[in-house]
Amino acid sequence: MDGNRRYAKKWKLEEGAGYKAGFLALLSMIKYCYKLGVKYIAIYAFSIDNFRRRPQEVQYVMDLMHEKIQGLLKEQSIVNQHGVEVFFVGNLELLNEPVRIAAEKVMAATAKNTDAMLLVCVVYTSSDEIVHSVQESCKDKWGETQVLNPSKGCNGVTKGFRVECNDVIEGFGGGCNGAIEEVGGDDEIQDYSIIKLVDLEKHMYMRFAPDPDILIRTSGCLSNFLLWQATTCLLYCPTALWPEVGLRHLMWAVLNFQRNHSYLEKKKKQS
Amino acid sequence: MDGNRRYAKKWKLEEGAGYKAGFLALLSMIKYCYKLGVKYIAIYAFSIDNFRRRPQEVQYVMDLMHEKIQGLLKEQSIVNQHGVEVFFVGNLELLNEPVRIAAEKVMAATAKNTDAMLLVCVVYTSSDEIVHSVQESCKDKWGETQVLNPSKGCNGVTKGFRVECNDVIEGFGGGCNGAIEEVGGDDEIQDYSIIKLVDLEKHMYMRFAPDPDILIRTSGCLSNFLLWQATTCLLYCPTALWPEVGLRHLMWAVLNFQRNHSYLEKKKKQS
Repeated sequence: MDGNRRYAKKWKLEEGAGYKAGFLALLSMIKYCYKLGVKYIAIYAFSIDNFRRRPQEVQYVMDLMHEKIQGLLKEQSIVNQHGVEVFFVGNLELLNEPVRIAAEKVMAATAKNTDAMLLVCVVYTSSDEIVHSVQESCKDKWGETQVLNPSKGCNGVTKGFRVECNDVIEGFGGGCNGAIEEVGGDDEIQDYSIIKLVDLEKHMYMRFAPDPDILIRTSGCLSNFLLWQATTCLLYCPTALWPEVGLRHLMWAVLNFQRNHSYLEKKKKQS
Repeated sequence: MDGNRRYAKKWKLEEGAGYKAGFLALLSMIKYCYKLGVKYIAIYAFSIDNFRRRPQEVQYVMDLMHEKIQGLLKEQSIVNQHGVEVFFVGNLELLNEPVRIAAEKVMAATAKNTDAMLLVCVVYTSSDEIVHSVQESCKDKWGETQVLNPSKGCNGVTKGFRVECNDVIEGFGGGCNGAIEEVGGDDEIQDYSIIKLVDLEKHMYMRFAPDPDILIRTSGCLSNFLLWQATTCLLYCPTALWPEVGLRHLMWAVLNFQRNHSYLEKKKKQS
């Protein structure tokens, strides 16, 4: 949702007014989407990179976010009106406490809603999502051997590995000979080198939702948003600033998506 | 470079004619780029997903690619005229042998050119690039411990690990107590869970070039191309099919890039 600050500058408003206008545009867009029958919406509310902005500005955005997240708990909120399950997605540990607690409350309060899903990406970047997923996949793989991951298979028993250089670990090569053999443990040695695409998929923050069909970016660039998921979706970069975005932009995106639907579906099947 | 087949269909040409028209458009675009002073060009010549097309079609594209790659070796080729170093990027092992050998010859023959760089992505997808980078990063990390990666520190000596559950592996947690201690080796235990962004960057196929400034996609979607690198570049999705793309599209992209230059630079610095 890029362009809030530039909108404020353009109309000679206070900076905060840009964010407020951006929030109103967001609310309209979400309403239009639900009316059109869109089931999944993901919004890029706060990037990890945004922490590099001036501290007062970050604080302002956090306060605004806190207020708006709390607003979602109200009975007449858009979320309750449309039966929306809300997920906050990203490195939530980096959120300040009031916002994180409010986010957790909303997730708990909406967990049973099934009509639609709203994924709010906060303290998010795709690079962070991918690196996080890599680390989780490594933990998973190591856990399987019950040795290198102390959080699984931990039983206090001292186990030993006898390790010689070998080619048995597929993909490693290296011209060594020998064998890797576990001593004192019951499990087969796993192939450590093989972290596959499915492993990464399994640990992505966005795993709760299907890949997007349409990605709207007002900045004209992806800004590290949904890179992993945006392989075959329609990209739409309107020249408008975010607070200026409205129904006509959404309609353009949807019509263009419909026009290219069979082509995009074919792409998806091929990938 | 999407749209070659649709172009052939649109003009009732044989399918192969679409690819040939696409190649001519590519040649023009590369020439225009070098005349404009663009130093790095990356082209998406063949996606891993393209292997799912009909075998005859795949063979046709491979033959065309072989012919055109061999053409690059000629003295009067665009590469030699402009002093261009050529890199073939992707899972090259999946290429058929004649094409791979031709690609290797071109890389060797142009290795000393320094005026510009042409990265030809063949048998490439971003997901594959990222997964490949993860696997290479894991190998690197394991190599450091001289135990799990037989390609490094391999000396035929049997080493032993005594492992107890512990919190010393940062980021694992798990409520276990104890210690991980290496027996018979000289190295400290490494933190296995920490594969960082810089590790992934180091092993990307595209590490030889800076991230792109402009990404032109005629399909309107990224099709799994440069996802990792396209965080802050200008996206441009003309409605033209690839063989229809020409100077006016390039100029539009460059002018739009210039218009948004300061904004995009700021984005880059923040990320």
